[in-house]
Amino acid sequence: MRRVAIIGTGMTKFGENWEQSYRDLVVEAGIRAITDAGISGDKIDAGYIGTMASGKLIGQEHVGALIADYMGLNPIPITRVEGACASGSLALREGIMAIASGMKDLVVVGGVEKMTDLSTGEVSDALGGAGDQEWELFMGATFPGLYALMARRHMKDYGTTSEMLAAVAVKNHKHGVHNKYAQYQNEITIDTVLNSKMVADPLHVFDCSPITDGAAGVVLAPMEAAESYTKKPVEIVASGQASDTIALSSRDSMTELKATKIAAEKAYTQARVSPKDIEVAEVHDCFTIAEIMAIEDLGFFRKGEGGKATLEGKTTFGGDVVVNTSGGLKAAGHPVGATGVKQAVELTWQLRGEAEGRRVKVAQVGLSHNVGGSGATAVVHIFKRGY
Amino acid sequence: MRRVAIIGTGMTKFGENWEQSYRDLVVEAGIRAITDAGISGDKIDAGYIGTMASGKLIGQEHVGALIADYMGLNPIPITRVEGACASGSLALREGIMAIASGMKDLVVVGGVEKMTDLSTGEVSDALGGAGDQEWELFMGATFPGLYALMARRHMKDYGTTSEMLAAVAVKNHKHGVHNKYAQYQNEITIDTVLNSKMVADPLHVFDCSPITDGAAGVVLAPMEAAESYTKKPVEIVASGQASDTIALSSRDSMTELKATKIAAEKAYTQARVSPKDIEVAEVHDCFTIAEIMAIEDLGFFRKGEGGKATLEGKTTFGGDVVVNTSGGLKAAGHPVGATGVKQAVELTWQLRGEAEGRRVKVAQVGLSHNVGGSGATAVVHIFKRGY
Repeated sequence: MRRVAIIGTGMTKFGENWEQSYRDLVVEAGIRAITDAGISGDKIDAGYIGTMASGKLIGQEHVGALIADYMGLNPIPITRVEGACASGSLALREGIMAIASGMKDLVVVGGVEKMTDLSTGEVSDALGGAGDQEWELFMGATFPGLYALMARRHMKDYGTTSEMLAAVAVKNHKHGVHNKYAQYQNEITIDTVLNSKMVADPLHVFDCSPITDGAAGVVLAPMEAAESYTKKPVEIVASGQASDTIALSSRDSMTELKATKIAAEKAYTQARVSPKDIEVAEVHDCFTIAEIMAIEDLGFFRKGEGGKATLEGKTTFGGDVVVNTSGGLKAAGHPVGATGVKQAVELTWQLRGEAEGRRVKVAQVGLSHNVGGSGATAVVHIFKRGY
Repeated sequence: MRRVAIIGTGMTKFGENWEQSYRDLVVEAGIRAITDAGISGDKIDAGYIGTMASGKLIGQEHVGALIADYMGLNPIPITRVEGACASGSLALREGIMAIASGMKDLVVVGGVEKMTDLSTGEVSDALGGAGDQEWELFMGATFPGLYALMARRHMKDYGTTSEMLAAVAVKNHKHGVHNKYAQYQNEITIDTVLNSKMVADPLHVFDCSPITDGAAGVVLAPMEAAESYTKKPVEIVASGQASDTIALSSRDSMTELKATKIAAEKAYTQARVSPKDIEVAEVHDCFTIAEIMAIEDLGFFRKGEGGKATLEGKTTFGGDVVVNTSGGLKAAGHPVGATGVKQAVELTWQLRGEAEGRRVKVAQVGLSHNVGGSGATAVVHIFKRGY
């Protein structure tokens, strides 16, 4: 197998991009990534696109072909990959494999979602497709409701408090201030969170990631060729994916995501690193409780101690590991199919020393963690400076 | 890169399977494939599932995780791949790559669609997502309408007749009689087609593939290990994919699918075979005109001669190449995400000498051709006896 590197990155602004269609978003991010790689489109061998619910959200499937067309890349094959909110990381995995296998030499990977064309109720319905529709969503469960169950149990078992949950949102907003692509670039306080409207007890609206339009893209090449494209290649040294039951009620534990633990274990083994080697991480904070469980399940902190660690500042600059420098899903926004690719873009910028205003000094190793639904899919990638 | 073989196959009956849910279908086909391979599920390293429009058709995305769960395969990663009606073949491509790369040793690939839970209008709307929604479907075009435009132009340019179109359906129904998994196992005549209701002139209802529930699965292994699982491995010697404009109106030609030609050229080169070496083929006959264009674009017949060749019996037993022994999409049915995988299953059975009642004698080389939408994605695989 060949080693794989990121040689180009691109993003759109995340937000309520009412003036941009799905195809506008993906073309903007894709062209930026290709331009950043210093290549022309006709050098690309293949593409993968992560999108969760384009059928329900914009009435469009077959988005691989749509993107090849609108990016002027025909007849290059572009394939859509879907795994709910982990779609972006799954697309990245397929891109990595295409290069690692030797089948392709230059691959563009994108993630995109256009979510603000519909009402909130319609978007909730579309996102509900990430859970077990027959046994969860049709019965009245929503995603805030499912994560609220996990939060409540985490509070009961480990003494996690609403302040600790709020501290995740406060930190991520603070980080997001410096990310010009973030949906929200404003700081908030713990009181902002605690005084905001309750969505599903104990989760307030500021405990939840927003509905977002956006796209992100990366260009992949074999590591051996990467230096001919860029002085600062970032190597993807590991890719781990795991599945768990789609319904939350079928699981042994409500306070951990087994799929995260298994995917991380695979990735650490493949990369030959341990959690303490990770200096910067983008983790899946679709709700504040999700980040707390993630930093525990990824091995950064012991089970039950994630909330306290966050409140004590251990996951921000100067702490043990800087988590969600981009602002995370909470502040940077969560265009579901794009999130996994955005994580890879942010980590590339960190490892290249480019994340202006939010740079983790001398970072050599980063980790991304992307979750589908309530944890039925988890994907972990590990990135290293390749220069 | 490692060589890749099919070591197990499984199908559900295709049809209006009102008693089976999406998950029932995929579990039935998957377990049959795994059983046929003589393995247990815990030996599987990864899975891919082709599904086009589960979001709109059954309200469910994230079907990779759903399937891992319902097949009892957790925590094995299963990833959904989508490219409209070519979703099944795209899933197969990713499975091939996973093995070829050395990343995985045993991969299960499935295709599934559950289409009969909704009204015909709702299904048409969901299928419309395969085209350019903003420029085609929202303006009133439907897939029968788009293919009717191609048929009309083919008739004008090459003298193709309604009888020639009908001959495709007649042949495929004749083949389908012997396929116990086919939706329709009854013969029809040219008059049946010509006297049937007009859907979009010149396409009658019998020129159109039906709405179908169904699933199909294959198990892949490295060729070097295949003989430890089966006495009759079938090698996948080539995989070609290409993209074209998503909207029909943007193309240079209405009578050929450029993506088919490019995907086929790639596949022939990779397999080091020519069209005349192909003894048995499963091609994408979503409408009768589609098969005529396919057998031309794949190089079996010269452009414009596909209709005449079909009418003269050159694409059935005793002819130059036996096309759609399964009954094709027309008679076997077209559960969109399943079709590409079903094609691989049928060709495996042919090359193993198992396709009872419809066996192509001494077949060594087969080809599958799967199209997304009106031709914006085309995928061609070539299969060889591996024993």
